[in-house]
This record gives sequence, structure tokens and C-alpha cells, in this order.
Amino acid sequence: MASITVRDVEKLVGLEASGREGSFARLSNYDNAGKDAIVFARDQASLTLALVSSAGLILAPSKAAEAGDLPKEPRVLRVPDPKLAFALCGRWMDGFLQPVVHPLAVIDPGASVGPRTSVGAGSIVEAGSVIGKGCIIGNNVTISGATTMGDNVVVQSGAVLGAMGFGYVREPDGRYVRFPQQGRLLIEDDVEIGANTTIDRGALGETRIGQGTKIDNLVHIGHNCVIGKNVIIAAQTGISGSSVVEDGAVLGGQVGIGEHATVGAGVILGGGAGVLSGKKMRGAGEVFWGRPARPLKEYLRDLARLKRR
Amino acid sequence: MASITVRDVEKLVGLEASGREGSFARLSNYDNAGKDAIVFARDQASLTLALVSSAGLILAPSKAAEAGDLPKEPRVLRVPDPKLAFALCGRWMDGFLQPVVHPLAVIDPGASVGPRTSVGAGSIVEAGSVIGKGCIIGNNVTISGATTMGDNVVVQSGAVLGAMGFGYVREPDGRYVRFPQQGRLLIEDDVEIGANTTIDRGALGETRIGQGTKIDNLVHIGHNCVIGKNVIIAAQTGISGSSVVEDGAVLGGQVGIGEHATVGAGVILGGGAGVLSGKKMRGAGEVFWGRPARPLKEYLRDLARLKRR
Amino acid sequence: MASITVRDVEKLVGLEASGREGSFARLSNYDNAGKDAIVFARDQASLTLALVSSAGLILAPSKAAEAGDLPKEPRVLRVPDPKLAFALCGRWMDGFLQPVVHPLAVIDPGASVGPRTSVGAGSIVEAGSVIGKGCIIGNNVTISGATTMGDNVVVQSGAVLGAMGFGYVREPDGRYVRFPQQGRLLIEDDVEIGANTTIDRGALGETRIGQGTKIDNLVHIGHNCVIGKNVIIAAQTGISGSSVVEDGAVLGGQVGIGEHATVGAGVILGGGAGVLSGKKMRGAGEVFWGRPARPLKEYLRDLARLKRR
Repeated sequence: MASITVRDVEKLVGLEASGREGSFARLSNYDNAGKDAIVFARDQASLTLALVSSAGLILAPSKAAEAGDLPKEPRVLRVPDPKLAFALCGRWMDGFLQPVVHPLAVIDPGASVGPRTSVGAGSIVEAGSVIGKGCIIGNNVTISGATTMGDNVVVQSGAVLGAMGFGYVREPDGRYVRFPQQGRLLIEDDVEIGANTTIDRGALGETRIGQGTKIDNLVHIGHNCVIGKNVIIAAQTGISGSSVVEDGAVLGGQVGIGEHATVGAGVILGGGAGVLSGKKMRGAGEVFWGRPARPLKEYLRDLARLKRR
Repeated sequence: MASITVRDVEKLVGLEASGREGSFARLSNYDNAGKDAIVFARDQASLTLALVSSAGLILAPSKAAEAGDLPKEPRVLRVPDPKLAFALCGRWMDGFLQPVVHPLAVIDPGASVGPRTSVGAGSIVEAGSVIGKGCIIGNNVTISGATTMGDNVVVQSGAVLGAMGFGYVREPDGRYVRFPQQGRLLIEDDVEIGANTTIDRGALGETRIGQGTKIDNLVHIGHNCVIGKNVIIAAQTGISGSSVVEDGAVLGGQVGIGEHATVGAGVILGGGAGVLSGKKMRGAGEVFWGRPARPLKEYLRDLARLKRR
Repeated sequence: MASITVRDVEKLVGLEASGREGSFARLSNYDNAGKDAIVFARDQASLTLALVSSAGLILAPSKAAEAGDLPKEPRVLRVPDPKLAFALCGRWMDGFLQPVVHPLAVIDPGASVGPRTSVGAGSIVEAGSVIGKGCIIGNNVTISGATTMGDNVVVQSGAVLGAMGFGYVREPDGRYVRFPQQGRLLIEDDVEIGANTTIDRGALGETRIGQGTKIDNLVHIGHNCVIGKNVIIAAQTGISGSSVVEDGAVLGGQVGIGEHATVGAGVILGGGAGVLSGKKMRGAGEVFWGRPARPLKEYLRDLARLKRR
């Protein structure tokens, strides 16, 4: 991994050159920090701790209100958002990782894999699939031939992308026949997908995951769902077929969403919230909680009512 | 894939020969339909849209009440249940897929795999396991030696069949010793199992999945469970050890069922419903909802009560 | 597998030598028992059934109050806890299983794997990871280079250990940047981990799973969690980042725990219980239920209140 200089950090967060020197090999918490490490402090209290550590560079808030008015400490670099700056340093350093296609990755000759994409051992990229550039695919991932993936996508180990969706038609005698599941799965740039997560392809149309969306482990996304851009989906959440989650929504863990539901742009669903089939949740920044999901204030009032008499 | 003729379709749905000609290579939605494609219309409104498409054959309801009394349109074939007919066409066409055992499937010499069964790359079929004919096993599937599987079973990528169940005995000092997990897993004909789903083998006896049952992604079925025939189990549902789900039951997503519980024949559990250990839910066609699961009417009344005062 | 003698069983449960002879090849339920099999009876009723079986050795409770005062039956061995004795026999017999590293396991030269450890086909052990002795790793498991594992750990098929956690920082324009996920995952001795479970590594510090803890299938444990010793975590439970579960706690299935929460030593969380971020649940042996989790008595009173008017 490449070292990062003070000047690199300044550039990442949009600061002018201070002329300070120094170069750092890694990011760290306070406990394990050394002269070669960068740490960050989110406020005055953590800055005090950071200063006690051996860190070589401490990213601290620009505003005195947040991190006090310190005597000149050459290790401190004031930045607008220290945690973000720290994360940007991580991304910058990751950019120097050498992409590797493991010799035991199984990439079908009929698949297309872009340059600078890594594929781990045991991962299967089926004929028909298209993977962009700069992607990182973990181990034992399955990417079905129904999948098209943009650039800089991260797929962690064990994820299954583009499997057949869960759609059946009942015969008069009670048996079920699978509805055709021959659509596609489109994953846009900068999406990240957690370990053992499953995202089904469309039945006849497509399933789509919008640019920049981040998905945690063990999440299920059904066929024909359309997930917007920069959506956050925490672990073990399940989204049934044909539902829509619009840009910037935030879904906690273990959320359940029925079929043909809509979670509007910017909506926040608390952990374990449940959205019924066909339901539409609206309101950027609005927080919904419970099963069925309702505005947080209403949910809390309901809870309080249970206790009252 | 083989083409399907009008006569083939008529046979599939039990119609007499109309003498009409035509042959179609694929199934489609309206957007992507061409002369080579079959689409279906569930009612008058969708038939209107279907007629605007370029589809070569449109499966429409037989009853005029459902799809109107149209002028003779040579592309329309009237069938009793268009969606079912469409699914049957899909199954008919799938019958021509060439079975493939991927060279990177790991089939132990001590395993038995029937004819016309496909096994994907990275899938492990351990010694002792028995797989019937015409099955489709995805990629990176694990089929333990404790597994016996009938014919025409579909197992999607990443599923783990026949793992050790979760049974422990507590020692006086608080440590846990695993109870023996050396039983078997029986999967009957026509079962379909979703991606990354886990079904444990019996502890001493067997776990059984009945004929025609369909299981979605990320479902967990514990040791010694007995699941009946033609049961539907949606994504992320979990069934604890030794529970019984009888024929024709329908379980929504994220349902949780305790140990030694019974879900009776034809019972419907709404998404997220919870059934306590030892509980018996009865009544074909009865819908249960909530945690703990109760009849839908009662659940709705409880919700309304919360709001009333 | 080795046969186990009556004397071996007596030693396992701390009994003096009775001088009885006999040697048994397997453990069984009553239905499949033969002269070569050991069964156990937990009470008088099951002892009656056990005696009807063909079992060669029957482990029965020492206390007459539990299993009656039987006429001398040479097949019956009285032990303090028959189920525990039966499990100890299983562990004893498992000790003779030959460890196997499958030729299609992918163990990086930069990984360290202890003696008598089995690794299944398709499992990936990355450079940097350390695995102790006597472990059993199933198939298609991913063990990232961030993982250190003690002795006698069991990891079932499809589990993903040490993946990157789900931590992101929001940029002013709504996009998300991954917070560095470069910590480690420590798994202590005697831990058992179910199929397709995912445990993330620490972000900067570590995630830790304490000695003797047993984790079921499809469980998610987020980055920087600290799980104590002899904790039980049933299937599909999810624990968000930086939470603590102390020694001896028992978590039912589908439990959800927010970030930075604490589940105290010996606390019992019923299936589906939900613990909010930052919350602390305390009390050894205390049972909590519902979402949000509350003492069982309170939960039941709340349920009753819903019905009352």
C-alpha cells in the first residue's frame, strides 16, 4: 500500500497546501497507532485521547467549538469533517491495491470482466455476465449470466447475484409452476454488496441497484426490485419482488418490505420495520418504525399507550 | 432452447387443436416482445397493452368478462388461466435445456447423481448423498453426505443442505456439548430451494421437505423439521428444530417459527409472523399475522385498539 | 469411527467402574436402534419406549423419581444426566474422525493451519489468517486474512468470516465512502459457527467471539462486536456493529440488536426480540421478549392489555 502525505490529505478534503511535511503508511485507532499512522478525532474529548497516542497525524475538526483551541501541536491537521477525511484517506490508499484475479476464480469465456477488477477464489462468473472495471469480487461469489455490473462495485464473499426469483403460479391441483425467471440484474457503479447477500434477477424485466447504494450482509432483494442511488440497506433486510426504494433512503437491519411497495426518496426505516405489500412510505428524512411501519412519533405514542392503564 | 408451437401451448393447457400455426422462441414482457415472443394478458386492460406490443402470440383469458369480446385478432389465444399457461410454456421450454455437470463441480465418488442432473461450478456433493434425476444444482452449493434428494429438484447457488443442526446440551459448568447431529435430510421431488438457504439434517432422525414445496432465498430450516407438500416459504423465514409445516401452507417472508410448533395444512402466515414454540396453528385458508401470530381479524383489531384512545 | 465401551461411558460421566462389559458402534434414536447402538431416556415414559427398542445400551436417569425403580435390566446404565451423557459419547466418538484437508480447499501459503484441522472443498483460507488445531471447516467457507481462530472451532459450510464491516461516511453530496475496515476477527477455542453465517472483522480494532460460544445458521455479527464465552445465538439473529453480548447469554432466533448495545451476562432474549442501539439489557437468567425487548412479564401484560377492552 502506498504512503499518503499531508499534502495528499489536504487535497482530498479540499484544503490549501500548508507546506507541512510527513508521510503515513496506515490508518489506525488510538491503541495501535504509531508514528506511521493517521488517526481521527471527532471532538475535543477524543482529540485529548488522540494526543496521548503515538499517532503521526491527527485529523481534528476545523471548528474550535468542536475540538477546542489547542496550542500548536504539529501532529494535528484541522479538517472540516475528520471522519470523512479519514475515510477518504482509506479510499485513496485502497486505490493502490493490486487487482488480482485468483487462479481458482471460474470466469466463463462468455463473460466480460473489465480491467483492474479482482475476482476471488471459488467465485463463478457465468457466461453472459458483464462486470465493469475496478470491481472487487470476494470469494465463492456467484454472478449469474443475467448480471450486468458497472465500475468500482464491491461484492463480498458468498453473495449470489442474479439467481432466479421466487415467482410461482398455482395449478388447480395445488401444485406450483415456476413463473419464467429470465430477466436481468443491473448493478450500477460504486455499489457495495455484503457477504452472503442474495439479489435476484428480474422475472421478465430487470432488477436494478442504483449507483452508490451500499448493501450489508445477508440481505435479500427480490426480482424486479428497483433500488435507487445512494441507498443504505443494513444486514438481514428483505425486499420482496417488484418493490421500489428511492434515492437516499436508509433501511435499518432486519427490515421487511412486501411486494410492490415503495419507500420514497430519503425515507428512513428503523431496524425491524415492516412495510406491507403495495404500501407507499413518503417523506425525505421521515423516520418510520415498527410493524407495520409508522411515523416514529406515532410508534412511540402507541408503545406508551400500551403501558398507560 | 426449442421453439414452442401454438399446438404445443394448446396441449399444455388442455385445449383442442385449433389448427392455428405459428412457433415462438421465447417468453417476454410487452416491452421486449417481438414476433418470436409469447406474452400473456391477465385482463382486458393488459390485453389492450399486449395488442399494442409486437408479440407473436398473446395468451388471454377465455372468459369474455375478464378480457372482453374482441374482434378476431389472430395473435390472441384464449386460455383458462393465461399466467399459468405462460408458466407452463416456460417449463416446457426449460425441458430442452441441456444438463451440464460443470468440470469444477466436486462430486465425491461415493455420491450418487441421477441422469439429466446439472451441477454448477464449485458445488460439493459429498460421499453418501443421493441426488435424483433432472435436478438443477447451482454454483457453490454444499450437499452433505446426509442428503437424499428426489427428481427435478432445483437448488440455487450457495444453499447448504444437510449441515449439522443447532442442538447442544449444557454442562453443569455452563459449557455446551453438541448433541449428536447424524441424521439425514430428505428432499422429495419437485422441491425448489433458493440461494444461500440452509436446511439442516436430522439430529438422530430426519428432516424432510415434501414434494413440490418451494423455498425462497436465505431461509433457515432446522433439524428434524417436517415440511409437507406444496408448501410456499418466502425469503428469510426461519423454522426452528422439530417443527411441522403441513401440506399447502403458505409462509410469508421473515416468518419465525419456534421449536416443536405445527403450522396446519393450508394455513397462511403473513410476512414477519411469529409462531411460538409448541404452538399449533390450524385452519386451511386461515390467515395469521403478527408476533405472536393471531388471526388476521384479531391482529387488525389489536392494531386499531392501539389507536383508539 | 471407534466403538465406545460401557467403561468409556462411565468415565465420561464420572461414574466408578461397574465391571459391565459391552461395546457400541453408534448413537441412535429408538426407531433405528440395534444391539450396536446407544440410546438415552430422559424420563420414565421414554425409558419404557427405549426398553421396547433393540438398543444395546440405554442411558437413563440416576434418580428413581425421574425414571422409576426398574427390575434389573442389563441394558440400562443409570447416569446423572442422560442427554448430556449421550452428547458426551458423541463427542468422544467424533474424536476418532480422521481430519482431512480436501485437495480442493484453497489454503494460501501465507495462512497458518494447525494440526488435525479439517478443511472442506472450496473453502478459502486467505493469507494472514491463523487457524488453530483440531478445527473442522466445512465447504465453501471463506476465512479472510483478518481472522485468527483458536482450537477445536467448527465452521459450517458457506460461512464468511472476517469480511469488511458495514461502515460508511456520508459525503455532503449524499454519496457514501467506506470507513476503513482493516481490523481483525478473533474466534476463541471451541466456538461453533453455523452454515452461511457472516461475522465481520473489526473496522480498526477487533471483533471477538468468546470461547465455547455456539452460533447457528444465517446469523450476522457486525464489526467490532464482542461476544462473550458460552453464548448461544440461534438462527438468523443479527447483531449490529460495536455491540457486546456477555458470557452465557442466550439469544433466540431472529433477534435483532442495534449498534453499541449490551446484552448482559446470562440474559435470555426470546425469539424475534429487538434491542435498540445503545440499550443495555441486564440480569442473569432474566428473559426479555418483544420489540423493543422488555421483561417477559411486562411483555405478556402488554399483550393482555391489547385484548382487554
